[in-house]
Amino acid sequence: MPTTEQAKKWYQGVDAIHDFSHIERVYRMAERLARSEGADLEIVHAAALLHDSRGTMPGSGERAEHHIASAVFAGEVLAEEGWPQERIAAVQHCIRAHRFRDKRERPETIEARVLFDADKLDVLGAVGVMRTIGYAVLAGQPAYVQPSQFFLATGQKEPGEPHSAYHEYLFKLCKIKDVLFTEAARAMAEERDAYLADFFVRFAAESRGEM
Amino acid sequence: MPTTEQAKKWYQGVDAIHDFSHIERVYRMAERLARSEGADLEIVHAAALLHDSRGTMPGSGERAEHHIASAVFAGEVLAEEGWPQERIAAVQHCIRAHRFRDKRERPETIEARVLFDADKLDVLGAVGVMRTIGYAVLAGQPAYVQPSQFFLATGQKEPGEPHSAYHEYLFKLCKIKDVLFTEAARAMAEERDAYLADFFVRFAAESRGEM
Repeated sequence: MPTTEQAKKWYQGVDAIHDFSHIERVYRMAERLARSEGADLEIVHAAALLHDSRGTMPGSGERAEHHIASAVFAGEVLAEEGWPQERIAAVQHCIRAHRFRDKRERPETIEARVLFDADKLDVLGAVGVMRTIGYAVLAGQPAYVQPSQFFLATGQKEPGEPHSAYHEYLFKLCKIKDVLFTEAARAMAEERDAYLADFFVRFAAESRGEM
Repeated sequence: MPTTEQAKKWYQGVDAIHDFSHIERVYRMAERLARSEGADLEIVHAAALLHDSRGTMPGSGERAEHHIASAVFAGEVLAEEGWPQERIAAVQHCIRAHRFRDKRERPETIEARVLFDADKLDVLGAVGVMRTIGYAVLAGQPAYVQPSQFFLATGQKEPGEPHSAYHEYLFKLCKIKDVLFTEAARAMAEERDAYLADFFVRFAAESRGEM
């Protein structure tokens, strides 16, 4: 198993959204879910430590394939540690299947579902506010722009419509609670989603000079 | 009076914390406070539009003097518009006195107090969360690190202690509600401060894997 010190090195210089504090939170949450689901802890630990280890910079060209690149890197790290091939493959499956936007490989194993849920819980709640806003700021996007009726109806932006953090909430984050696999994660997600939704409601009201 | 279109140009390419959406919120809030306080609306409007017009990039060398640079620029803009010298000076006083960290020139006029309060309300509440987190992300600082006992007691960091957004809350933001000048702003600040404080409490709990 890679040590925490080793893992920290993979995330040096990484943006604030996917830095080692994200890894630590996902690691802790994945461990908690793994215990309640009876998942293989070693697989889950390794997958949590390695799941964002390559190419996560917002707005960068490689971001769309960061789960693939991270799985390849995980294979190299674990092979060097002498892990058997089928356990390496189990970790790589977790990592390749953790990306919400990519439906090519869905989480099939309980370990992959645990990693998926732990990673997704980290975009909701107060941590979700920090990461969504931080991502928008780094990508040069505004925090809140009132979405067009067209976007609200279809999820597609009108020509020239900016992508704000609130658009990201409506496009992706508000659906997270419905795509989780484990009971425990779903229960936490309900409450964290409500907090994140309320943040944008408040933000809009304050921006209008209310409250 | 500079038009909104003119003013937008001064804030092009500016970071997400001091961009034109900040100016619009401060303008709206300052107008609201000016009406309830009987302040000179033209002075307040001009000061709101120009108050961050120069050198606000987080972490930049000029940031510490951005209120001075913005006042100089305001003088140039308003002189070109043919404003009388004493009204230009009134706007410049508002701008020079708006910075919390600089005690050299305090807000003496009702217009300066209105601008000060409107600007400070914009660091609290959900907007405050966005700006504090956004500032930290742009400056490469973490959102939350548990402060040392020494910092909690003295407001000074221990050697090597990172400056997180939560440190900024404890050093500056939690005191905002006590330094405002107008009644109306103080009432709004109480509730916005509670929201911002709760954000960090939640963030810490979620980071520990609770909630």
